[in-house]
Amino acid sequence: MLELYHAEPVANSMKVLLYLKEKGLDFTSRYVDLLSFEQHEDWFVAINPNGQVPVLVHDGAVITESSIIDEYLEDVFPDPPLRPADLVARARMRIIVKFIDEYALPALSVIGWHRMLRRIASSIDADEFDRLMARVPLKEQEMKWRTIAGESFSEDVLADSFRKLGVAAGKLDGWLANGPWLAGDTYSLADINAYTLAASLPGLVPAEAGRDAAPRLAEWLERMDARPGVKAALAMPNKVPESLRTFSPSMQRARQSEATG
Amino acid sequence: MLELYHAEPVANSMKVLLYLKEKGLDFTSRYVDLLSFEQHEDWFVAINPNGQVPVLVHDGAVITESSIIDEYLEDVFPDPPLRPADLVARARMRIIVKFIDEYALPALSVIGWHRMLRRIASSIDADEFDRLMARVPLKEQEMKWRTIAGESFSEDVLADSFRKLGVAAGKLDGWLANGPWLAGDTYSLADINAYTLAASLPGLVPAEAGRDAAPRLAEWLERMDARPGVKAALAMPNKVPESLRTFSPSMQRARQSEATG
Repeated sequence: MLELYHAEPVANSMKVLLYLKEKGLDFTSRYVDLLSFEQHEDWFVAINPNGQVPVLVHDGAVITESSIIDEYLEDVFPDPPLRPADLVARARMRIIVKFIDEYALPALSVIGWHRMLRRIASSIDADEFDRLMARVPLKEQEMKWRTIAGESFSEDVLADSFRKLGVAAGKLDGWLANGPWLAGDTYSLADINAYTLAASLPGLVPAEAGRDAAPRLAEWLERMDARPGVKAALAMPNKVPESLRTFSPSMQRARQSEATG
Repeated sequence: MLELYHAEPVANSMKVLLYLKEKGLDFTSRYVDLLSFEQHEDWFVAINPNGQVPVLVHDGAVITESSIIDEYLEDVFPDPPLRPADLVARARMRIIVKFIDEYALPALSVIGWHRMLRRIASSIDADEFDRLMARVPLKEQEMKWRTIAGESFSEDVLADSFRKLGVAAGKLDGWLANGPWLAGDTYSLADINAYTLAASLPGLVPAEAGRDAAPRLAEWLERMDARPGVKAALAMPNKVPESLRTFSPSMQRARQSEATG
């Protein structure tokens, strides 16, 4: 019995939705509404003390951290494999996942908080905001909310985040020189992980991630978009208003095809 | 044929040395002298374009990133296992490794750069420093060198780093409620990873990591110190002058036993 607590198919929630849909595993979907701060409510913090999605519950065992949930699912349900059989390629897969998680997604997150969540923070009155902040379990998360509710990130931090996304686009394009998928010959957790970042890159850093600068990345994004597992994940519920969906990969792709078509 | 490019048995180099010595695997040691910036020389950047240690070369295949090197070695040499057989415990092991790598070690690194590497930066004349900086492959590393060569990290950043180390001490002590080792019943990659952090904690954040506040952590450190694999790793070459060894775990332990004995 698999249960997934998740938000819309974006960012960390998307990593696990992409996995489950790719693999065709049955699961009970538990939508957690981040825009109404449901992830900090007592009932959810009782499940994940960090107050973050996604969370997998498998026969009563609670697993957190999206990239580790995917490795766990792969340990439990190894067929068909989403990790390369070749162990050097498997290490390469993990290096890519680590790079995306530690270097690129935090940079994307800064821009997401600045562009989207800031509008949410500013729509909440001060007393309600303080009440909501008192419930945030992770100090780091509370600090980010307070930063965007104030003067937001500095120009330096924003510029450095865009720089990092440009570096990430170049890295992805370089890795794709080794084969059609990021870890080489076979579709893997590296592709799943990278898609949650890469679908937004052409719109955010076109000079580095557009088709001219990163042709292999552009072709890989098309291969990703065409996968039934990706389409199924993107079709999952999304309660975020259209006007706030800066980072919805599906929209991003649609925008790009409008621009080029 | 295993070759390891590494520095002294501290931080990321230590993670792989602890693994290899625990497992009793033969390897050729290639010492890279970080204090003379050997990691940025052409011959080394040709092996790892990021200019960072450790790097494993296994039958010609180059593997980087210490935590991933250990997972790779475990994939290749699974016996005796250093990952729990129980898959939920294995996921817990990976969550701990991820927390150490993403949350705690960067905080420890800030303090290490501030206390130790700053003294190195200030001992180099300006022209030579610029020449060395021009060779640093990673922009982020160059920025850290330039920060500590200037006014160093702000008081806020340093205070927040100490706060995070206190949080990490509490987490480690909490996880050890589940058994003698971090992932439960068996010694694993989580213990190896955490030791590179935790051996320094009682000295840096005694209020949170001392025996009174974190008794399980104190006992676990004693169990770690007693392991032959840990002793063998700590006995590896170390060219860092005694006066600069702020973070040598062996010294840390020695200092503590002096203080308590």
